[in-house]
Amino acid sequence: MKIGIVGGTGEIGEGLAMRLGPRHDVVIGSREAEKASASSTECMGILRGRGTPCILRGVTNQEAVDHGEVVILAIPFTHLAPTASSLTGLEKKIVVTPVNPLQKADIFFFAPPPEGSAALLLQKLLPPGTRICTAFNNVAANRWRALDEPLDYSVAVCGDDGEAKQVVRQVVESVPNLKAFDAGPLAVSPMIEAVTPLLLNIARHSRMKDVGIQFR
Amino acid sequence: MKIGIVGGTGEIGEGLAMRLGPRHDVVIGSREAEKASASSTECMGILRGRGTPCILRGVTNQEAVDHGEVVILAIPFTHLAPTASSLTGLEKKIVVTPVNPLQKADIFFFAPPPEGSAALLLQKLLPPGTRICTAFNNVAANRWRALDEPLDYSVAVCGDDGEAKQVVRQVVESVPNLKAFDAGPLAVSPMIEAVTPLLLNIARHSRMKDVGIQFR
Repeated sequence: MKIGIVGGTGEIGEGLAMRLGPRHDVVIGSREAEKASASSTECMGILRGRGTPCILRGVTNQEAVDHGEVVILAIPFTHLAPTASSLTGLEKKIVVTPVNPLQKADIFFFAPPPEGSAALLLQKLLPPGTRICTAFNNVAANRWRALDEPLDYSVAVCGDDGEAKQVVRQVVESVPNLKAFDAGPLAVSPMIEAVTPLLLNIARHSRMKDVGIQFR
Repeated sequence: MKIGIVGGTGEIGEGLAMRLGPRHDVVIGSREAEKASASSTECMGILRGRGTPCILRGVTNQEAVDHGEVVILAIPFTHLAPTASSLTGLEKKIVVTPVNPLQKADIFFFAPPPEGSAALLLQKLLPPGTRICTAFNNVAANRWRALDEPLDYSVAVCGDDGEAKQVVRQVVESVPNLKAFDAGPLAVSPMIEAVTPLLLNIARHSRMKDVGIQFR
């Protein structure tokens, strides 16, 4: 599968690239192509060192969109609207949002836009009919890069296009141990995104380094 | 531990009574004492048949409050306000709410009161300082009664009183396989309650009978 990771130089983006790279044709996008290039070189080095060499290319975010059949927006919530409006052609792709709008005060809390969730805001910003799915929202950022440890977690996938959702579930399950669950239409996204601040609160109060989730 | 289950004749209440009965001094409350009595007789029969006899008493909801050091409000969200205002003495107890305000349309969705959650509404209704904790919110109703199957799930516990939270965590973990996680103060309760409609959506779309959760 051709996968473009927009914002691929962040912790989640690089982790996704290294987990998906050996199994798909992955490019890492960034606002600055040089940064993406450096990031892809580093990720390839890590993977080569582990005996799972693969080719990752660093490109601009727009080139990542152009490349991907599946485009993953691995960006912070505050970048979502400007990034979505600066990119073209997303309506021809399967767009995956792992984005969680959250804030930290005494506790971590879910801070969605008026649309109800990052995914629903994205739906408003992109042309009607764009095949948007949520996925990967609840996997802790630093788990992605801990390649020695299996991602023994569940991933809730929601979206309004059943075929796109099926493709995204296959991408999820191409990562060893990750298990995808169909959570229904995109309207379910607020509940999926809200799990992430809950996990952060549990990690903090249960003195765990990070907390993931399994549905069972 | 003396435990009073308000609304103990419902599916979750009876399940809680049967899981906790062999390990604690449990009474089942109901608005009608006769109903509670019938329910406790039935539960005791089931437990006796399984070789784990114990004594459960059926009482009024007020008597369940009076009995319990820990009082569990195993009632639907719509009963929460009237029940809380009809009972006295809750401010002297550790009050546990497993209540989830949710509604069903095309999807199951979280439908909290203006206070933000059932737990926060309860906090407003009860005298200041009442030791309220959430617990048991995300365990599927019919799992409680499936006594042949271990409850291999995680339970997020939140509340503002650290000592009360510790007691509730011990009650949770007195049920074999259930694991309690401290999720922080009561302000985290909206995120805990919102997990339940997510699990219902996943169960429906993933064609699972019911779905529980593990934090890990």
